[in-house]
Amino acid sequence: MIRAAVIGSTGYAGIELVRLLSQHPDVELTAFTSTSYVDQPLNEVYPQFGKQLNSLCVAEDWEKLVSSNDVLFCALPHGHVAEKLQPHFLEKVKVIDLGADFRLPEASTYETWYNLPHPQPSLLLEAVYGIPEWNRKLVSSTRLLANPGCYPTATLLGLLPLVNADLIDVSTIVVDAKSGVSGAGRGLSLDRLFTECHESVKAYGVGSHRHTPEIESSLSTITGVSIPPISFTPHLIPMHRGILSTIYAKLKSSSTDLEVIESLYQAAYEKEPFVRVLPKDIFPETRYVKGSNRCDINFKIDFRTGRIVVVSAIDNLIKGAAGQAIQNMNCMFNLAETMGLEAVPAFI
Amino acid sequence: MIRAAVIGSTGYAGIELVRLLSQHPDVELTAFTSTSYVDQPLNEVYPQFGKQLNSLCVAEDWEKLVSSNDVLFCALPHGHVAEKLQPHFLEKVKVIDLGADFRLPEASTYETWYNLPHPQPSLLLEAVYGIPEWNRKLVSSTRLLANPGCYPTATLLGLLPLVNADLIDVSTIVVDAKSGVSGAGRGLSLDRLFTECHESVKAYGVGSHRHTPEIESSLSTITGVSIPPISFTPHLIPMHRGILSTIYAKLKSSSTDLEVIESLYQAAYEKEPFVRVLPKDIFPETRYVKGSNRCDINFKIDFRTGRIVVVSAIDNLIKGAAGQAIQNMNCMFNLAETMGLEAVPAFI
Amino acid sequence: MIRAAVIGSTGYAGIELVRLLSQHPDVELTAFTSTSYVDQPLNEVYPQFGKQLNSLCVAEDWEKLVSSNDVLFCALPHGHVAEKLQPHFLEKVKVIDLGADFRLPEASTYETWYNLPHPQPSLLLEAVYGIPEWNRKLVSSTRLLANPGCYPTATLLGLLPLVNADLIDVSTIVVDAKSGVSGAGRGLSLDRLFTECHESVKAYGVGSHRHTPEIESSLSTITGVSIPPISFTPHLIPMHRGILSTIYAKLKSSSTDLEVIESLYQAAYEKEPFVRVLPKDIFPETRYVKGSNRCDINFKIDFRTGRIVVVSAIDNLIKGAAGQAIQNMNCMFNLAETMGLEAVPAFI
Amino acid sequence: MIRAAVIGSTGYAGIELVRLLSQHPDVELTAFTSTSYVDQPLNEVYPQFGKQLNSLCVAEDWEKLVSSNDVLFCALPHGHVAEKLQPHFLEKVKVIDLGADFRLPEASTYETWYNLPHPQPSLLLEAVYGIPEWNRKLVSSTRLLANPGCYPTATLLGLLPLVNADLIDVSTIVVDAKSGVSGAGRGLSLDRLFTECHESVKAYGVGSHRHTPEIESSLSTITGVSIPPISFTPHLIPMHRGILSTIYAKLKSSSTDLEVIESLYQAAYEKEPFVRVLPKDIFPETRYVKGSNRCDINFKIDFRTGRIVVVSAIDNLIKGAAGQAIQNMNCMFNLAETMGLEAVPAFI
Repeated sequence: MIRAAVIGSTGYAGIELVRLLSQHPDVELTAFTSTSYVDQPLNEVYPQFGKQLNSLCVAEDWEKLVSSNDVLFCALPHGHVAEKLQPHFLEKVKVIDLGADFRLPEASTYETWYNLPHPQPSLLLEAVYGIPEWNRKLVSSTRLLANPGCYPTATLLGLLPLVNADLIDVSTIVVDAKSGVSGAGRGLSLDRLFTECHESVKAYGVGSHRHTPEIESSLSTITGVSIPPISFTPHLIPMHRGILSTIYAKLKSSSTDLEVIESLYQAAYEKEPFVRVLPKDIFPETRYVKGSNRCDINFKIDFRTGRIVVVSAIDNLIKGAAGQAIQNMNCMFNLAETMGLEAVPAFI
Repeated sequence: MIRAAVIGSTGYAGIELVRLLSQHPDVELTAFTSTSYVDQPLNEVYPQFGKQLNSLCVAEDWEKLVSSNDVLFCALPHGHVAEKLQPHFLEKVKVIDLGADFRLPEASTYETWYNLPHPQPSLLLEAVYGIPEWNRKLVSSTRLLANPGCYPTATLLGLLPLVNADLIDVSTIVVDAKSGVSGAGRGLSLDRLFTECHESVKAYGVGSHRHTPEIESSLSTITGVSIPPISFTPHLIPMHRGILSTIYAKLKSSSTDLEVIESLYQAAYEKEPFVRVLPKDIFPETRYVKGSNRCDINFKIDFRTGRIVVVSAIDNLIKGAAGQAIQNMNCMFNLAETMGLEAVPAFI
Repeated sequence: MIRAAVIGSTGYAGIELVRLLSQHPDVELTAFTSTSYVDQPLNEVYPQFGKQLNSLCVAEDWEKLVSSNDVLFCALPHGHVAEKLQPHFLEKVKVIDLGADFRLPEASTYETWYNLPHPQPSLLLEAVYGIPEWNRKLVSSTRLLANPGCYPTATLLGLLPLVNADLIDVSTIVVDAKSGVSGAGRGLSLDRLFTECHESVKAYGVGSHRHTPEIESSLSTITGVSIPPISFTPHLIPMHRGILSTIYAKLKSSSTDLEVIESLYQAAYEKEPFVRVLPKDIFPETRYVKGSNRCDINFKIDFRTGRIVVVSAIDNLIKGAAGQAIQNMNCMFNLAETMGLEAVPAFI
Repeated sequence: MIRAAVIGSTGYAGIELVRLLSQHPDVELTAFTSTSYVDQPLNEVYPQFGKQLNSLCVAEDWEKLVSSNDVLFCALPHGHVAEKLQPHFLEKVKVIDLGADFRLPEASTYETWYNLPHPQPSLLLEAVYGIPEWNRKLVSSTRLLANPGCYPTATLLGLLPLVNADLIDVSTIVVDAKSGVSGAGRGLSLDRLFTECHESVKAYGVGSHRHTPEIESSLSTITGVSIPPISFTPHLIPMHRGILSTIYAKLKSSSTDLEVIESLYQAAYEKEPFVRVLPKDIFPETRYVKGSNRCDINFKIDFRTGRIVVVSAIDNLIKGAAGQAIQNMNCMFNLAETMGLEAVPAFI
């Protein structure tokens, strides 16, 4: 059994980690920390757990957590993990960070987008950005795993086959993404009130969302292709869970045909348990992936404009956070990647 | 392994049965029938299943289903099962009916409320109305199980301790229940359109809902107490899943105190895996039980009025349909009652 | 033109007052006060107003407001108005309080339910609880109008014909009400987040909601019938606006027939512009009254139980707050009651 | 008074027309036709109208309607109006078509996208595509008005200033739009059920939506700029009303600065009553325009990518259908454009 702890367990990503880890057949969940709910039973904080998960939340004590676990999952605001994580901890424990601290290869990019000097730039060399469908070998050998953000996960899974095969003009990439409200977290703010976001849709972070450089650098790192700045706009949708990413790019050649692209996506994902390319003309809906670690993808070549449109959908809290983190853990510990992630989700 | 089939698998209760049975460690799901989708893979009808559950829906062939299974789950409109089910089938297979055909002990009551002569009145003697927390011995020995309706399940679990202990005046019972839209099924009708039921609440079936006699007769059968007509009003809530039942009744004695009632509920449910009595002053919310086979309950003694108010919550498609059916199956086959029903549900 | 000001204009009831008053043909809206948004244009606080309503919110200055207006609308938390309102103000200005300070005839009841000694008990004698369909004469001659709460409005309009005609046993009244989230106001709290109340329903304030004594005392005051404690339970529904009140009571006589009750309701409401008794077997839905000052009502006699079930629906922010306040103002200033309230609401 | 009739009054656009026209101070609404509800009072079909609008729906009789009205509003499926409208009718009555039959200048484009030979190609020469902010002179003199589609309205209002000023490379335009469910109409289909579209988002009509050529041809007609094929993808959002259009294009010059664009938008819309350019960094939300005839717009220059991102929001049933139709009528009859459209909408 792998001994695992969750640091920051009472936010939405944290609680999803606890839920999934508590049911993982090869994991012993040793502790979950909280700032606001120390010494409260988790099933009091989240009555959804019924009579299960009645252990107490504990305070964050890194020395103790490092010495008594095989892996630490961190679901904290950016800046915190990089500050607390001493390099020598990694000799004793593997770390999977669901936050942003180790996702960008350059400390300077981090500083630009997060308005914060990176507290541990040396660790950036060691960290692996883990999207197992594309770099599971690297994932399997790292001690420090940067779990991708929700928007980047949906977007990268949709775009990587095209970029990797050099079929699109990367200077024309436009990503328009839509997310459920859980992506905004559990903090109190006026714009998260039911009465202020139900029955409405809006764009936010236009031209400035921090997942933009993450998409750019990851596309580049994984494929080796140089990626210029892309356009990325996130939107807030009045629903609990789900991300839909609609991606536009010019095809390099106007003669690229459907079969070529179909083969490309099939080759990339046919054997992947968590990625499905939908049949022709059936496009992803977030409800189809809600509650699962899956990503659904489809595309359309628009011969009028010479563009390809790719649509991908994930559950932002699972494939976009906790589920992918566990998939990465499985990989890091040489378990079947699907372990603990196979539950068939409810249809609504 | 128990060989099981689902008859009527593509409605909302049916698909939930398939989902849960497909993950039950002791069940082999041999077939699922459909009227509208014969020969279509189930994961095409419900793309939510991803690459899983890709077997084809089959046509309804009772002879064949009876001879090749240990148990049949029926999720059909009322009237159908009683018409198709030959008494001798029960010599070969157990039947769990999620419909209404065997829930009422008297054929005449059925005829009054369903406007239909009962096609198999003789089987009513044999059928057991299965609410395991209250009659698991009977359940464990029957061949024909009438699975309770959604509203009756929530209401009975809330009311039974009080009726059974003879603490309330049963002539004063008023049940005001609220259900998500999935309870209305998947049929096309104007009032189920998003645009016609979102952002609204309504009562329906006022004074005439068919779950009314089911609540009355089951209260009486299980407790032995004679139950006069009760008031029951269902309401439609703009959400997917969940039933909240708010129950009012006069206490027989004005001196009944909190501790007495608390003990009563604790005695009834403390050891039950699926029923939880919430701490004082914390009342059920349907989101706390969504996705689970649980029922959450709490109550308040209103000394001003001499009434007790009981509130109970379930997921209408699980404890109110497919989950309870599987709990009953577990009971009928001497398995642990929780088998296949232990997944920790997501918090949203 | 009537000179009117809104004290407490940036909460949900306040902003609805501003919206309606700004379109009232006989009102000049002189000022709207705010605590949080002083000196901000209202259409910045609520961008919904577009280029309209771009005046600045002002600080609360009672002396000034009293001397420069004909009527003050107060939409403040309970306790505030009774504290600020000096009896001599009423010599200069009429006051319509949308809060709870003057709704209960007895200061002791106020103290019991609001945990606060009443700051101005003498004014309770003067205040009129204004529900024009039932007491418009009193309303027309008062200087201090207590505008009813949202739940009481829906409930009283449904119940009053029966109580007034002495047809029901008032000791058996049970009121089960359902409200949209706007009823909870605009304050920040965890349980008002979209992610914590969407897709769920719950009861709250069970046996302790402050609208309970308001319903009791108003029933009694208006009809002269002595009313014992009633049962009232509010519920939170995942929608913006609307209250549905489902009311249960025993008929005094088992031979009361449909026609009697129909005549009763017709007599009460046929000529009322804002109250509609729906055709037989068509029950209110909150969407039918959303955006209007109307109340829809229907009832069913349940001969099995001897109970009558009445269902009424209003928009909690209009007939349940701002709209009724304006209807009361119209009455107090001898205007047509419908003035400023006749806009046909959108169907969704 | 202008005598007006609505042909096709019981769909969602039709009923919104009836609602708005019934309150227009200079309009006498003479008749509303229906196919499904002939001889039923409109307030029975839509109980939302309370005691108002209780006239009967009539059957569609063009000869009669033409001879007894000054203007006909048509809200019918495409193909119907072009088939029924005889050219000589226009000598007696003005026609405002909310459908697609007269929006495209070329009959061949219509045939390509609607799979239907155009029944009245000669009328295409006469028809004016009416977006008053950009071509009110033409609108004021036409007898046959093609009212723009919902997506084109939001998109054109956002894009036209840039195209007109020749600041963007029109070959790079990508339009990603999001609509509430009312845009799909009132017809029965599985994917419009609450249970099939709530809590989900999807793209549809990818690369094939019929509003694509409408956007292209209208951009070109209004500005005189030749427009190559653009990318347009609509999405379905789980809400009643609203369209948000997010528009991407490369700026022709990398030195175009903020002030230039701001001036451009101010010049275009400062004096427009229905279009508002929001303050810097405040982006449109559909709730801000719901219930109004307004369009909110903002933009961001993304210097990293050289693209400008424009976001615009409308209520799809008002500025995107019935409201704009009335604005066009006002224009055609030399009334103030805002007449009948000035109601301040509710904040939720």
